[in-house]
Amino acid sequence: MRDIYHDELDEIGAVLIRMAKIVGVAMQRATGALLDGDLTTAESVISSDPEVDALRAHTEERCFQMIARQQPVATDLRVLITSIHMLTDLERMGDLALHIAKVARLRYPDRAVPDDIRDVIEQMGSVAQSLVAKVADVLEGRDIELAQAIEAEDDSMDALHRKLFTLLLSPNWSHGTEAAIDMTLLGRYYERYADHAVAVARRVVFIVTGQWPDPLASGFSTLG
Amino acid sequence: MRDIYHDELDEIGAVLIRMAKIVGVAMQRATGALLDGDLTTAESVISSDPEVDALRAHTEERCFQMIARQQPVATDLRVLITSIHMLTDLERMGDLALHIAKVARLRYPDRAVPDDIRDVIEQMGSVAQSLVAKVADVLEGRDIELAQAIEAEDDSMDALHRKLFTLLLSPNWSHGTEAAIDMTLLGRYYERYADHAVAVARRVVFIVTGQWPDPLASGFSTLG
Repeated sequence: MRDIYHDELDEIGAVLIRMAKIVGVAMQRATGALLDGDLTTAESVISSDPEVDALRAHTEERCFQMIARQQPVATDLRVLITSIHMLTDLERMGDLALHIAKVARLRYPDRAVPDDIRDVIEQMGSVAQSLVAKVADVLEGRDIELAQAIEAEDDSMDALHRKLFTLLLSPNWSHGTEAAIDMTLLGRYYERYADHAVAVARRVVFIVTGQWPDPLASGFSTLG
Repeated sequence: MRDIYHDELDEIGAVLIRMAKIVGVAMQRATGALLDGDLTTAESVISSDPEVDALRAHTEERCFQMIARQQPVATDLRVLITSIHMLTDLERMGDLALHIAKVARLRYPDRAVPDDIRDVIEQMGSVAQSLVAKVADVLEGRDIELAQAIEAEDDSMDALHRKLFTLLLSPNWSHGTEAAIDMTLLGRYYERYADHAVAVARRVVFIVTGQWPDPLASGFSTLG
């Protein structure tokens, strides 16, 4: 029989999965709002972000109280400290979806994304969606192989990011400086969203195996 | 007489101050390398960043071991958990200095920053320097009023960031898309550096007072 302490640890795991789903929906809606110039959807992403922030703050406090009151053994303590880091990553993913929605709102009634850039932004949105769906699965099943697939998928985000810069720097770029600035910031938001998704996956690997996926890789340590 | 536990807590505080100083020097050197097109300095910022990452990882592990072995009371536990967050902020500030140095290296032997943008970037560098120096002082003295001054100074970073966009979007902008992209990313790096400095200051206020500086402000919760 599980004790109350482990029930509570499971509940924190459930919140992490829920947050991954919430920031996944936020990203899906933000990308849709951006590509379709849809102000209502953009506003809904923006207005729902404080819920994610509050969920992070509340759940971090729960982790803290569990550590303070239960004085968990090393393994459970590792899970709780790592959960606090994952909460921060997931909250930040919500913020990045919010930033994308704000670009959509800023340019409304125009569409922020020029037609010849639409494809690459749409693909960045798809990769972000796919990454966060896998993150929720990894959190649910603690599946190490799936966590590794997330790192591979992050490479395709990096490739799309490079492709975006190639398009912006092409002599055919005819959309001016404002659109170039918007696309630069959007590219950064999608890339950082993916980076935080990878961070969450790596933290799950750390909890399960006790080892960082690759201690020499600097990728993880550049997050925060 | 202090006990060994509190001596160790003081040592972690000393590491945080040291990291603030290291990432302050990194930012100073990165800005210098950027403005002067100085490859040697840019390379030195880039090559020294892994030390900051290692210091973060090592010190987080020390915090973890202190929690696991000593089972600290609530106040000391709060200090340790908050220290883990501050380590993440400071490491990220080092990464952002590194990103600035990489822009300098990428454009060498040219200078990345056009002459008519030089002033605003120089000022962003100065504000970043001033912020991180105050952060080190706040960590050292736990001075709440100084922590509030940091928030006010962050407003001047935001004003500089807006000024940068005004210059990029002026009809007189004659430096093309590549320079506009560089300036957009640089502006973001300086702004995020300042955001993380503010986050560290707010965390000190939280440790000292037990309250977030302004629970309704969303500024803090957007960090990570």
